[in-house]
Amino acid sequence: MARVVVDVMLKPEILDPQGQAVQRALPRLGFDGVADVRQGKRFELELADPLDEAAIERVREMARTFLANTVIEDFTVRVEEPVHVRPEERL
Amino acid sequence: MARVVVDVMLKPEILDPQGQAVQRALPRLGFDGVADVRQGKRFELELADPLDEAAIERVREMARTFLANTVIEDFTVRVEEPVHVRPEERL
Repeated sequence: MARVVVDVMLKPEILDPQGQAVQRALPRLGFDGVADVRQGKRFELELADPLDEAAIERVREMARTFLANTVIEDFTVRVEEPVHVRPEERL
Repeated sequence: MARVVVDVMLKPEILDPQGQAVQRALPRLGFDGVADVRQGKRFELELADPLDEAAIERVREMARTFLANTVIEDFTVRVEEPVHVRPEERL
């Protein structure tokens, strides 16, 4: 099982109201010094097949045709080690 | 300007209907071999202050109290090289 991560973010020239809402809320919550916030989507795909260049290319094609709207969004595809349990973040 | 990325994903034991919808749609669209899909959020924060351990700790605190719902979500905080070329930097 291989994990591939697809990050989808609005293109820099596209307004991001979600990110702006977060940025404007931060000072009210006591967090200063954040000049900009952009919010996007992260997809974690578990591939059944072995990971090779063809598999990555198929994920790129998925991202281009389905996961991202390439008119307004950029995407990146990368392979990531499977790390499901993040003990340091568990409360 | 330093860019810090906060990834927020549902905990593995929490059902992810968005990810399931994506996974079920993929075969219909001609993409087989994806065993699981999880969908989460990616925040890109541009910090005005220089990046040090205290700044990272403040971002962790933001994530814990505001960006993630730690009852059902895990988050990771990491420093990333700026990838997007912003229009104002091109000028």
